[in-house]
Amino acid sequence: MSNDHLHAMRHTAAHVLAAAAERLYPGSKFGVGPVIDNGFFYDISFPEPISEANLGKLEKTMRRIISESHAMIKEEMPIDEAIQFFADKGQVLKVQLLNDLKEKGTTKINPEEAQDIDVDNPGVATIYRTGEFVDLCRGPHVDNIKEIGAFKLWKLAGAYWRGDEKNEQLQRVYGLCFETQEELDAHILMLEEAKKRDHRKLGKELDLFVFSDLVGPGLPLWTPKGTFLRNKLDEFVWELRKNRGYDRVEIPHITKKELYEKSGHWEKFKDDLFKIDTREGHVFAMKPMNCPHHTQIFDRKPHSYREMPQRFANTTMVYRDEQTGELHGLSRVRSITQDDAHVFCRQMQVKEEMLKIWDIIEIFYKGCGFGELNVRLSLHDPEQFDKYLGTPETWQIAEDALRELAKARGVSAVEEIGEAAFYGPKVDFVTKDSIGREWQVATIQLDMNMPERFDLTCVNEDGDKERIVMIHAAIMGSLERFLSNYIEHTAGLFPFWLAPVQVRLATVSQTHKEAASRIHTELVGAGVRAELDDSDEKLGKKIRNAAMEKIPWTIVIGDKEAEGGDFKVNVFGQDEDLVIPAAELVARASKDSKLPM
Amino acid sequence: MSNDHLHAMRHTAAHVLAAAAERLYPGSKFGVGPVIDNGFFYDISFPEPISEANLGKLEKTMRRIISESHAMIKEEMPIDEAIQFFADKGQVLKVQLLNDLKEKGTTKINPEEAQDIDVDNPGVATIYRTGEFVDLCRGPHVDNIKEIGAFKLWKLAGAYWRGDEKNEQLQRVYGLCFETQEELDAHILMLEEAKKRDHRKLGKELDLFVFSDLVGPGLPLWTPKGTFLRNKLDEFVWELRKNRGYDRVEIPHITKKELYEKSGHWEKFKDDLFKIDTREGHVFAMKPMNCPHHTQIFDRKPHSYREMPQRFANTTMVYRDEQTGELHGLSRVRSITQDDAHVFCRQMQVKEEMLKIWDIIEIFYKGCGFGELNVRLSLHDPEQFDKYLGTPETWQIAEDALRELAKARGVSAVEEIGEAAFYGPKVDFVTKDSIGREWQVATIQLDMNMPERFDLTCVNEDGDKERIVMIHAAIMGSLERFLSNYIEHTAGLFPFWLAPVQVRLATVSQTHKEAASRIHTELVGAGVRAELDDSDEKLGKKIRNAAMEKIPWTIVIGDKEAEGGDFKVNVFGQDEDLVIPAAELVARASKDSKLPM
Repeated sequence: MSNDHLHAMRHTAAHVLAAAAERLYPGSKFGVGPVIDNGFFYDISFPEPISEANLGKLEKTMRRIISESHAMIKEEMPIDEAIQFFADKGQVLKVQLLNDLKEKGTTKINPEEAQDIDVDNPGVATIYRTGEFVDLCRGPHVDNIKEIGAFKLWKLAGAYWRGDEKNEQLQRVYGLCFETQEELDAHILMLEEAKKRDHRKLGKELDLFVFSDLVGPGLPLWTPKGTFLRNKLDEFVWELRKNRGYDRVEIPHITKKELYEKSGHWEKFKDDLFKIDTREGHVFAMKPMNCPHHTQIFDRKPHSYREMPQRFANTTMVYRDEQTGELHGLSRVRSITQDDAHVFCRQMQVKEEMLKIWDIIEIFYKGCGFGELNVRLSLHDPEQFDKYLGTPETWQIAEDALRELAKARGVSAVEEIGEAAFYGPKVDFVTKDSIGREWQVATIQLDMNMPERFDLTCVNEDGDKERIVMIHAAIMGSLERFLSNYIEHTAGLFPFWLAPVQVRLATVSQTHKEAASRIHTELVGAGVRAELDDSDEKLGKKIRNAAMEKIPWTIVIGDKEAEGGDFKVNVFGQDEDLVIPAAELVARASKDSKLPM
Repeated sequence: MSNDHLHAMRHTAAHVLAAAAERLYPGSKFGVGPVIDNGFFYDISFPEPISEANLGKLEKTMRRIISESHAMIKEEMPIDEAIQFFADKGQVLKVQLLNDLKEKGTTKINPEEAQDIDVDNPGVATIYRTGEFVDLCRGPHVDNIKEIGAFKLWKLAGAYWRGDEKNEQLQRVYGLCFETQEELDAHILMLEEAKKRDHRKLGKELDLFVFSDLVGPGLPLWTPKGTFLRNKLDEFVWELRKNRGYDRVEIPHITKKELYEKSGHWEKFKDDLFKIDTREGHVFAMKPMNCPHHTQIFDRKPHSYREMPQRFANTTMVYRDEQTGELHGLSRVRSITQDDAHVFCRQMQVKEEMLKIWDIIEIFYKGCGFGELNVRLSLHDPEQFDKYLGTPETWQIAEDALRELAKARGVSAVEEIGEAAFYGPKVDFVTKDSIGREWQVATIQLDMNMPERFDLTCVNEDGDKERIVMIHAAIMGSLERFLSNYIEHTAGLFPFWLAPVQVRLATVSQTHKEAASRIHTELVGAGVRAELDDSDEKLGKKIRNAAMEKIPWTIVIGDKEAEGGDFKVNVFGQDEDLVIPAAELVARASKDSKLPM
């Protein structure tokens, strides 16, 4: 079945939800009820606030209404008549929407409202009847509500009317809706699994990061273990880059606003920047990206073509003045660590440099335990050329370079017209996590704009200045966002090479303390991150503690092990023990600690 | 001779300078003429601006006046009479100072003026006569100007009257002055050497850092080579810390101002902070130090005494809203990288933790090629106890701990009463650079204040909450300031283990390209930072280029070397070549690349 049908089905389900609310809780006032990724929601002002416990009854009433097999009947109504109609029904929120529609030709305040209310002809309102229930709506819907597939009311949340905290707070009822029961069940399973893996929950349990009320929301503080993870991942990226001729550079986190006026970011992003008024009356900004700073390092002196490319790597924080309500764990923060890199190169070097970056991305994501990466070419839309910088010729060259690149890698890349950045086309990499969620993990961007604005050149073989191009390529992108996904992908069980604590030694009794301590010293001496638990706790408790912390290897040290027998390594997540001869333990742990490259 | 005598001599020399100016350039108006570290200056408004070329004549006139052997005659004069006296002489600047003195009892606007004009009795002005020249001055002076030792007029600069750019710009004439000609000559030599070693000059020549007009003053951008230096030095510090149980943590560079209100920094430093008004109307600040953030990581959960100490290391930038006029190369910047660390520990653990830090400081500075460190204990002043936080008992404990520490290290530490921070006593380390300049390089601070303000505790053996203490200890302190000094100390010749490029291979001719390339690959494969110059330049030019870049080892690859003969390593700064058998080159270079720990 088509995406359109699924959308219509979900949209109709939202109407049925409202119809059920009206039947169960007369006097309910309805806001908007749009379709979302996995179903729908409706914002409702109930006569008395309801609780999650009421969702079952509401869902049951929806099923009863569906069993009545009402058709979805569309009608058009002059707008003033519609206003009167909804006013008579006491639907004050709908009246507000209709008044906006009448005066401004649109009800759009935020995008969520758009699909529900926006109409083709502002003089006329479209309504849909579902039995006795009538709703203002543009459609489309399925013909009859019995066509709605499998659904389930899922959760309840608060939402300010029209997204404005000065307005009344409504209750948002979320519903899941899929074509089949199997799809719905699979999705519910995924949601349950996702809840267990929530990085905010695991981040606390594994002691990786913390938020402080005094420091403020969206500003994570990284504990020793979390910092270790960050640094190890960054070291992995850096080793891959170092082997490919990258150099590290370093920059301050602020700049005069003049830098962004020149780069064009000021005009585009100034509302999202943290701005600083200095004591001398200058305006500084905290950097929301690193490329403009890096151009200033490149441009410190003339470069011969022999020195090209120049490859700058720089893991550093950037900042966005996000609204508090939009922050979410590590996935949406105000201080964002980027493993950023910029390659300053000649047009003719683009393909080779991009292939190197592609290698890095593949090795990195494989080493972290992700499956295959899907590739998307984000290209410009020739029919809207005024949206872009540059000439059709430069775009042709750039996009052909990306196509060649994909061909050279032997991948079938989906081409997405109109998805390019305004300054150049992109190669986007997409993967699925272990519970089936898709996410874009890395991007290689070709930029012909910044070099133009900053007049970046090299001196070519003829002694002439030659315009260069820039390639932007962060591998993890935002470390915070990467970790939020990675923690959920692994459920906190990090690969052996990455785990902050790799080995936990647990003694059976006091008599094994000395032997355990010797083994511990040997492991630590070889650079293995081993911890010794020689406390007086029961062995079972020690093993459970290690499992709680998701330590990859737990090794019990008893009589046999103390006497030099094989080690039985309890590998987290595996039923079978790993048996390692005593003489090989340190070498094996050291070997497994190496970066997977 | 005493410091007082030197001071009086320099002070008198300033008067003689003014007397010479009056004799040579009648109508000169005099501002202030204080003593400085190496002599004196006088701010003068000449009838026509003078140039550096005039300094010789001015100095000659000073010598003629000195040969006249005038006594320095002190007189007191009622203040109104003094105003009239200087007004009659056309000395309008002196009249301004006297009017201030009369009205406010002081002329202090900035400290420079203080010593010249401030008087004990504001109703009376003190003047000094030097032959026909008369100056407003509190003294003291030498009895006769012939007691002035060796001096030399040194340089000319601009200075706004009373440090305010809205006032007239005067000319500041600087003079060097010492007891003996030998001391003066030595100082002049040092100044010339310092000029050659100026880190701003060497930083550009060695391509270590750059300032951009678009990014702004005081915000250095670090090139690949400069970043390498920073990272290598930081790696050195980190390895020393890691071996002593430190963990790395990471923090955002901003915070809500509430954090600093609680720490007390807001009240004390708010004018020096970069402040941010967010889109939601909150006030954020860029961090001027890291300790308050680190307390929030420590305080994320309760700590058992078994988990103490907690040692957090964090190399990160802090920011100060410095005035543009106060910025200077890397030694005074707006974005400051600190290799910061905080140890959260019990009172009884202070000595052991401080000894570890002391070890780190000694190993680090020795490894970097500095001489002996002198140690100073900065203690509180019991007679001004209201300046400090805490009780006499806690101070007693803390200072005794520091004394014990010094004793345990077998050093004779100078005790400086009244030099403690308001929150606790300090151990300061001072060294001399290669041209004899003293600078304070590291500090260990014991802090009983922050734990109090943030209520930091551990749970002790009795199950009770126990107040802990914090130790602050940056090893380099500010990386920027450290590098400004270190570049000048080494004149840019960094030790082999630290040099961004360690080895330059220079081919004699095209026939040696292959052999040189093989040797280059071997070195790089072993982690040695080697570069190959197989260009068609003359060999002499190649060697000069390597010397210009101050590369520690230059190895010429000719017939003998290509055939496996010994390598003759041209070591920068040494006359004699280092001869290394072919088979040992890589091993030797690898060994010398290790951190000196």
